[in-house]
Amino acid sequence: MGLDIQSEIDVVKVASSKINQVDFENLAFGNVFTDHMLMCDFKDGKWERPTIKPYEPFLLDPSAKVFHYGQAIFEGMKAYKDDNDDIWLFRPDENLDRFNKSATRMAMPEVPEHIFIDGLKEILKIEKEWVKKGLGNTLYIRPFMIAIGTGVIAQPSTQYRFMIILSPAKSYYSGEVKVIIAEHYSRAANGGIGAAKAAGNYSAQFYPTKLANDQGFQQIIWTDDATHTTLEEAGTMNVFFRINDTLYTAPTSERILDGVTRKSLIDLAKREGINVAVQPVLVSEIVEAAKNGSLKEIFGAGTAAVVNPIVGFSYQDVYYELPKTENSIALELKEKLTNIQHKLAEDTFGWTVKV
Amino acid sequence: MGLDIQSEIDVVKVASSKINQVDFENLAFGNVFTDHMLMCDFKDGKWERPTIKPYEPFLLDPSAKVFHYGQAIFEGMKAYKDDNDDIWLFRPDENLDRFNKSATRMAMPEVPEHIFIDGLKEILKIEKEWVKKGLGNTLYIRPFMIAIGTGVIAQPSTQYRFMIILSPAKSYYSGEVKVIIAEHYSRAANGGIGAAKAAGNYSAQFYPTKLANDQGFQQIIWTDDATHTTLEEAGTMNVFFRINDTLYTAPTSERILDGVTRKSLIDLAKREGINVAVQPVLVSEIVEAAKNGSLKEIFGAGTAAVVNPIVGFSYQDVYYELPKTENSIALELKEKLTNIQHKLAEDTFGWTVKV
Ligand SMILES: Cc1ncc(COP(=O)(O)O)c(C=O)c1O
Ligand SMILES: Cc1ncc(COP(=O)(O)O)c(C=O)c1O
Repeated sequence: MGLDIQSEIDVVKVASSKINQVDFENLAFGNVFTDHMLMCDFKDGKWERPTIKPYEPFLLDPSAKVFHYGQAIFEGMKAYKDDNDDIWLFRPDENLDRFNKSATRMAMPEVPEHIFIDGLKEILKIEKEWVKKGLGNTLYIRPFMIAIGTGVIAQPSTQYRFMIILSPAKSYYSGEVKVIIAEHYSRAANGGIGAAKAAGNYSAQFYPTKLANDQGFQQIIWTDDATHTTLEEAGTMNVFFRINDTLYTAPTSERILDGVTRKSLIDLAKREGINVAVQPVLVSEIVEAAKNGSLKEIFGAGTAAVVNPIVGFSYQDVYYELPKTENSIALELKEKLTNIQHKLAEDTFGWTVKV
Repeated sequence: MGLDIQSEIDVVKVASSKINQVDFENLAFGNVFTDHMLMCDFKDGKWERPTIKPYEPFLLDPSAKVFHYGQAIFEGMKAYKDDNDDIWLFRPDENLDRFNKSATRMAMPEVPEHIFIDGLKEILKIEKEWVKKGLGNTLYIRPFMIAIGTGVIAQPSTQYRFMIILSPAKSYYSGEVKVIIAEHYSRAANGGIGAAKAAGNYSAQFYPTKLANDQGFQQIIWTDDATHTTLEEAGTMNVFFRINDTLYTAPTSERILDGVTRKSLIDLAKREGINVAVQPVLVSEIVEAAKNGSLKEIFGAGTAAVVNPIVGFSYQDVYYELPKTENSIALELKEKLTNIQHKLAEDTFGWTVKV
């Protein structure tokens, strides 16, 4: 980028790291954070100088707009360490691009690359000990932006805070995932904010998901809100269906998040000679395929779990169990993708970026 | 309630009030707050003791769920002072009830009456100088609840903070309000959170509203997201249409907030012998009525503005100007309602509650 990053970011380091208190073998997702965080405020129409400083609580006014109007967006990414102790990112430009699309939809300012990407690289260099080697070990990266301007009038804030926090993660095994197809609740409206990683989209799912959990299902497969006839996402992941040897997944839309994992899996599958059909997927087609035995697999795709195989689904009070597959496309693609991410396989796509 | 309120709430008062620095004649909406705030945390499955203390910023962890998942709800109410210096609330039970419905939809704990209502009364007694006499002078009340539990896993928080902050307000004159009927963007999904006062609903409107502003319209009239054929709300208000001498307003639904002003206006109008039709209102009907001259008035209804007359609307690039009405039902109902709220007219409905 031609910028001298060091001189663009203020760095205040912790007196002593807490890394030795962390049990890296027993990490729950997203509740341990590294020693530092990146913080950068937007004020008077421009971004101030970013600071990397000790991870700690910060003060906000009770009338901050994020509390009242949910003006907040985020991203989810990972850093990986290879055998040479180099640290890698996976398609970070995609996350920056999506973050700024989310920002626009939420009437927030875009975050420039030199803050988002260069800031991220800088904090990763400082936290390099927190990225552990070995397949499945990653450092989960959470960039986010919140409206910190004050006042309870329902209007966009004029002040924002961009932050990056980091949380070490183990490979994510979610147990047997059974899902229920949404017949009443929904995740996104036409003309709404479903395609943005806007904070409010996620809390909106908590209650319906709790109801699903109470019925013994770990996740909901979301359908379109108007007719509940097309399948859109699984929980907070994109979703794929394998019928015979073809993978089906919905095209992205203003109701569906344009997932980096989804698009990478599509490219990988195509390279492997697997048929991929990106087209609206009807509930009726999947039920029919489950009945006649042609439905082989369903899986979610997202940064946290990479690929999340689903063992069965419920629709209109009938539970459809999927067959056990000998050669799972889900697991094959997951392995191929994680090998690229961890630099264990050649990255012919040019997806990985060295920190 | 039989409770000794004093003993249930801890009170820490400011050393000196800032009330003398406030210009009560020139108040912008929602940006000056009183000396104190009420704060009450939910932890380990129960509400702690509420505290009234000086209004000030508070600390939150960068991973607090409100920042990442928008798990946050609010209410909007007002306090009024009568000629005897008594302070009154308007249907506060309705706000408590709606707050707890919002809480359930957002997977948050309900706030008990002794915290919400008794806490509100207690802080209003302390801030009584901030409630000014005279029609149009009110103290705007903002109860809200945010998820303060930490960790970036997308699950409901286990810790919450309920707060009440107070902001003096002058009667709200919004200028000439022209609106545009939504043809692409929308406010709420079927099976979504539109009926909850959830934070994320409001920031979702900022961008489409900005686009409307750029075209010279102050607000959007929201339509159903699936077909954009029925009229639902105006900005963050419920909406009424007067065709000849009948008032039309949509029934509440899971996409439409059950507004206290709306339901009070309906009751008032009925008492005045005005025909009120609570039924879905089609865009085509309103356009037709505008064309044939039977559409007399459109107005928004909500706590902040009470009644917000609309002078015209745009639909499919055609602007429809409403006729000037001699005897506006909007203004008649507004006067009747504010007189009740300010204790200048008899409250035959039993809506007002003394603090
Ligand atoms: C709603 C939703 N869908 C899908 C995804 C998957 O996107 P990605 O693969 O970029 O993580 C995410 C984010 O993880 C999401 O929040
Ligand atoms: C979306 C929405 N509709 C309508 C209203 C009006 O409700 P109330 O009359 O209770 O203020 C509000 C709140 O003010 C609102 O946020």
